[in-house]
Amino acid sequence: MTDEGPDAEAAPGGLRVHVPIHLRWGDLDAFNHVNNVAMLKILEEARVRALWKDEGVDAFPTAVISVEGTGGVGTLIARQEIEYLRPVPYQREPLDVQLWFGRMGGASVEVCYEVHGPRGLEPAELYVRADAVFVLVNLTTGRPVRLPDEVRAAWTPYLGEPVDFTHRR
Amino acid sequence: MTDEGPDAEAAPGGLRVHVPIHLRWGDLDAFNHVNNVAMLKILEEARVRALWKDEGVDAFPTAVISVEGTGGVGTLIARQEIEYLRPVPYQREPLDVQLWFGRMGGASVEVCYEVHGPRGLEPAELYVRADAVFVLVNLTTGRPVRLPDEVRAAWTPYLGEPVDFTHRR
Amino acid sequence: MTDEGPDAEAAPGGLRVHVPIHLRWGDLDAFNHVNNVAMLKILEEARVRALWKDEGVDAFPTAVISVEGTGGVGTLIARQEIEYLRPVPYQREPLDVQLWFGRMGGASVEVCYEVHGPRGLEPAELYVRADAVFVLVNLTTGRPVRLPDEVRAAWTPYLGEPVDFTHRR
Amino acid sequence: MTDEGPDAEAAPGGLRVHVPIHLRWGDLDAFNHVNNVAMLKILEEARVRALWKDEGVDAFPTAVISVEGTGGVGTLIARQEIEYLRPVPYQREPLDVQLWFGRMGGASVEVCYEVHGPRGLEPAELYVRADAVFVLVNLTTGRPVRLPDEVRAAWTPYLGEPVDFTHRR
Repeated sequence: MTDEGPDAEAAPGGLRVHVPIHLRWGDLDAFNHVNNVAMLKILEEARVRALWKDEGVDAFPTAVISVEGTGGVGTLIARQEIEYLRPVPYQREPLDVQLWFGRMGGASVEVCYEVHGPRGLEPAELYVRADAVFVLVNLTTGRPVRLPDEVRAAWTPYLGEPVDFTHRR
Repeated sequence: MTDEGPDAEAAPGGLRVHVPIHLRWGDLDAFNHVNNVAMLKILEEARVRALWKDEGVDAFPTAVISVEGTGGVGTLIARQEIEYLRPVPYQREPLDVQLWFGRMGGASVEVCYEVHGPRGLEPAELYVRADAVFVLVNLTTGRPVRLPDEVRAAWTPYLGEPVDFTHRR
Repeated sequence: MTDEGPDAEAAPGGLRVHVPIHLRWGDLDAFNHVNNVAMLKILEEARVRALWKDEGVDAFPTAVISVEGTGGVGTLIARQEIEYLRPVPYQREPLDVQLWFGRMGGASVEVCYEVHGPRGLEPAELYVRADAVFVLVNLTTGRPVRLPDEVRAAWTPYLGEPVDFTHRR
Repeated sequence: MTDEGPDAEAAPGGLRVHVPIHLRWGDLDAFNHVNNVAMLKILEEARVRALWKDEGVDAFPTAVISVEGTGGVGTLIARQEIEYLRPVPYQREPLDVQLWFGRMGGASVEVCYEVHGPRGLEPAELYVRADAVFVLVNLTTGRPVRLPDEVRAAWTPYLGEPVDFTHRR
């Protein structure tokens, strides 16, 4: 725990945000483990919590995007890649979704994820590696928006190594 | 339309299965277009319909995997990659999900997708490119299963060029 | 099949709209049958297809609500009730969702449903009975909207007996 | 907080379990509030957390149903009823899902819910009232299972008044 926020910690190459996300039993599919698509819903929720503005006292320092209101910007996903390392059972403690940035362009950003088992639980499990590229868009016009300086400043400490996927052709 | 089945057609490098998948209004998110994760649900349904055994008269020739019963095998997703080319609005005619194979290994298979607007509708829209690697697993033991010869034979005509992603680092 | 539309037929007490809705394998839960909540997603999709405006040649005559554009109205659900008669397995042919109206008030409408197995398949299965009350709301102001005369006229032939639930306290 | 458990408290007619459930942004629909069907997913998760066995130190005293393993029993929903009192916006603090029992039969149980805004937040909001009847079933045979004595004993303190729906025909 550092002064960077309630759940941020230094990792090789930069800080990571740690977003606790609860599974829902409904995330399981007929094979009785978390469905591969449901895992992307979990990444989506982690991204919203980590990046979209939040007035709460424990807000992540990266939560700076204003989605609502005049001039609201959204995050439009351009691409995603995800690698499933082992099946995820339903469990009650929140998964530890770790999130950082692999690259920041003019209007587009690569966000990187690792999904771990609940913090503090042994044995530690790494379930998923993923990344996504999103573009900031003005929600009224649908047009791309340059990354504002204050957003860039808030996110820069969380720049780190891109995801090193194991199985890539 | 060829003798390969009800909805298969030749494409450069091999045949493609054309799976019509209906959107649901619930696939939209608060930005009022098909959610990026919901699109993977649509790919999942196309994969199930195209690859899992089906006794119907119009079954795809590629629908040969026996998920149910003794010795049932499932398709466990190892990785996925997806590129969103343009937002998808809700529409009533089924999307045309085109599916082929990029590679067949011992127990793992790369399946490739393009999601197009409804067949016959002008202008033709290409919404999404994606691929996934899945492993055949015995649903009782959880262990990988070698691709049976008859599965390999059924899928070989649908081997084609891997997906050529536009935005890949 | 009558001149009331592509998939409408007379039932005791009035006409019913028949909306074919495809299951998705993802509608199953870890118990390997269609999840009870997923069934309400299927009713939602049937309602959208049956009631919201559609310019297609085979549009239901009840599809008259304009959701999009200036003055767009939405259907806000006030209550729902659903009874599950038997588990629903994954199947490829579309379920036959039958829909009619139990009551039309000033701004609120009771819509009734029965979910049957695919049309023409033997044995015929009745899986679900349900109803919902929705209120028409102006999507800009959020305020209730009186049922326009042309909507009332389009829906009146589909007024019938309310759902007779078996297990009600 | 009482000795009945970590999040149980006395209410008129009996105790209630308080299950905190986080929304996901993906629970919103194109109308930009929590979708009516998504709300039932939230009730499902509350039910699983409150009633299914949990070895955690903060387990609810009502969490006594063994779903996994030999002789595992599941909860099969027979009917549900839900009333939406006001639209629910996305919010980060968990909703307070209050849960109690309206009736316990031989193999079937009526579970009652109220969904409130986050505990401690002013103004207090009551969003949803709902109930559901479920049947205990043996997951291997699919047959109903009589409520075991220890389950009945654990749940009896949480018997209370059934839900008093406002809009019922």
